[in-house]
Amino acid sequence: MGAGLIGTSIGMVLAAHGNEVSFSDSSPRSAELAHEIVSGFTPGINEKFDLLIAAVPTSKVPEVIINAFQQDLALNYMDVASVKTNCVAQIEAYSAELASAFCGSHPIAGREVSGPESAQADLFDGRPWIVTPTNATSESAREVISSVLKSVGAVEIVMSPQEHDAAMALISHSPQVLSSLMAGELMLHSPQVAALAGQGLRDVTRIAASESQLWVGILSANSAALRPVLSSIYQRLGDLITAIEGDLDHESITRFLEAGRAGRELIPGKHGGKRRYVVLPVLIADSPGQLKRLFNDAGDAQINIEDVSMEHSPGHPTGLVQLSVAPESASRLEEFLRERGWRIYPPRNPDNLI
Amino acid sequence: MGAGLIGTSIGMVLAAHGNEVSFSDSSPRSAELAHEIVSGFTPGINEKFDLLIAAVPTSKVPEVIINAFQQDLALNYMDVASVKTNCVAQIEAYSAELASAFCGSHPIAGREVSGPESAQADLFDGRPWIVTPTNATSESAREVISSVLKSVGAVEIVMSPQEHDAAMALISHSPQVLSSLMAGELMLHSPQVAALAGQGLRDVTRIAASESQLWVGILSANSAALRPVLSSIYQRLGDLITAIEGDLDHESITRFLEAGRAGRELIPGKHGGKRRYVVLPVLIADSPGQLKRLFNDAGDAQINIEDVSMEHSPGHPTGLVQLSVAPESASRLEEFLRERGWRIYPPRNPDNLI
Repeated sequence: MGAGLIGTSIGMVLAAHGNEVSFSDSSPRSAELAHEIVSGFTPGINEKFDLLIAAVPTSKVPEVIINAFQQDLALNYMDVASVKTNCVAQIEAYSAELASAFCGSHPIAGREVSGPESAQADLFDGRPWIVTPTNATSESAREVISSVLKSVGAVEIVMSPQEHDAAMALISHSPQVLSSLMAGELMLHSPQVAALAGQGLRDVTRIAASESQLWVGILSANSAALRPVLSSIYQRLGDLITAIEGDLDHESITRFLEAGRAGRELIPGKHGGKRRYVVLPVLIADSPGQLKRLFNDAGDAQINIEDVSMEHSPGHPTGLVQLSVAPESASRLEEFLRERGWRIYPPRNPDNLI
Repeated sequence: MGAGLIGTSIGMVLAAHGNEVSFSDSSPRSAELAHEIVSGFTPGINEKFDLLIAAVPTSKVPEVIINAFQQDLALNYMDVASVKTNCVAQIEAYSAELASAFCGSHPIAGREVSGPESAQADLFDGRPWIVTPTNATSESAREVISSVLKSVGAVEIVMSPQEHDAAMALISHSPQVLSSLMAGELMLHSPQVAALAGQGLRDVTRIAASESQLWVGILSANSAALRPVLSSIYQRLGDLITAIEGDLDHESITRFLEAGRAGRELIPGKHGGKRRYVVLPVLIADSPGQLKRLFNDAGDAQINIEDVSMEHSPGHPTGLVQLSVAPESASRLEEFLRERGWRIYPPRNPDNLI
């Protein structure tokens, strides 16, 4: 398998479970490093592998899998790329035998770092991992992949390649497009205006900072599934623009905003349910030790902090730390922190943010 | 002035500076509460006020100001609403004398809470406060408003009403529209798909949870300034959709994503400069006291944490706490935390997020 973050992380767990593991990578240094990192690595395996994992970028998957199949390297083949239908189509077009030995997959895991040196044995622990078998996929391929997912502790979710790509177009690729769309609009105006940015603009544009070349690849590979979603978004934006023209259509504007509120409710919180936390905004000074003192005091209250974030504003010497806690704990924590001298803004529900 | 969050907060500071302050509100309870909260409140002032602050929603500003002017209540008038041109037009149309005594303003302050009970004397401290004088505005109105801003510690920024509304359309109202647009799209698909949401979708859709009626008012009042921004966004989205149709136009897709990265760079960080932090992701267990222990250890290292946020994933018993620190402190903090047994993913730059 490839010796990047994903490949090396899978290798660490499989080797720890007593499997024989070997890496191959376009970067010899990465392969070497992966071999060093993965204790239990078995050099010079001569038998055919049970499973070859093509942990390589989307655009390289078919080539890598087909090459390996031509050399008869493995009994089964899988990939871990973030777009599925394009790979499956090429693999099925190549040969029925390979199509049977192959099953696509996509771990929804932290990908904010890269390279074998970032590998973590628990990278996939408790995280969703989508597998995308087709009618051509053999039982043997399915089984060996399920056992890999079980080994790394991932939560297996079965979808067709088309369902997977449509889902990613909606929840991952469209947000990237809208974030870049908003951030790019700032370039058409005076930089002084962007300097007045509040937390809303910051949140909406955070992922616009993502690496461009990587995303050109993703948006290109998934263009077929992305088009209908972006076209629907485009049409709904056009409708809103019409609603704020001439005689304002308050009913349409309300429907638009209400749909957004309802859609936001569909996104689960930390524990898989809906977000039902109360947010306590605490004022802190911008100096070392303040967060330490705050979490010390919060810890003494024996209340679990479900989420934490910080808000800043330009030129402001202090910050607001937002502590999210279960509703039943909010007033107790607030009282506790007030007693210890913390300045607390009244609690608020995250759904009531402006 | 109105006895909401903004009005009461201004009143607290002005009274503390020895000014005579009085409230009037459509809710008698709010006015009464504001009077109780503001120590130094002077009941039954019989003279003409130096300044009347209409701290009321955008749609009510002209009516409130014109009524007060008809009763000859004050020498000068200001408002604090988030849209300016509509109020100015009505006030200037009413009388040249009122137009001279009036100056619009908009504090860019925390508005995540409301009501007099949420008032804070330091609500505006160090935060930008836009004032929008016109050619009609008198020196006297300008001066009294500048002295109010100085009293509350705000940073005065002068713009024309048109510049203000165009700026808000870009940095506040358009992000709200795009966030609601993305979140609303989730409603058109299976709820199971939204359940796979990652941090990117969460960030982009956070403000979609905002109160709809309030935003119907804002989008309606600022529709004239919002239309050209949304139309530009609409056209750029249309261009991107064209670029991912048929023969992919990689160059256009790259330009689109690069513009987003550049636009994101325009948003200042905590200290007014560009975001130049290193992010240390630290793995913590989901149990009380973990954050306490982490910030204790970080505090012992005597390093200032510039930002903090948490990442969760569904069904995952642990969380990632992201600590942002100055680049020169990153390796020292990492080493320090590792020594104390914390599991730390390799540092990363926020600009390299996926």
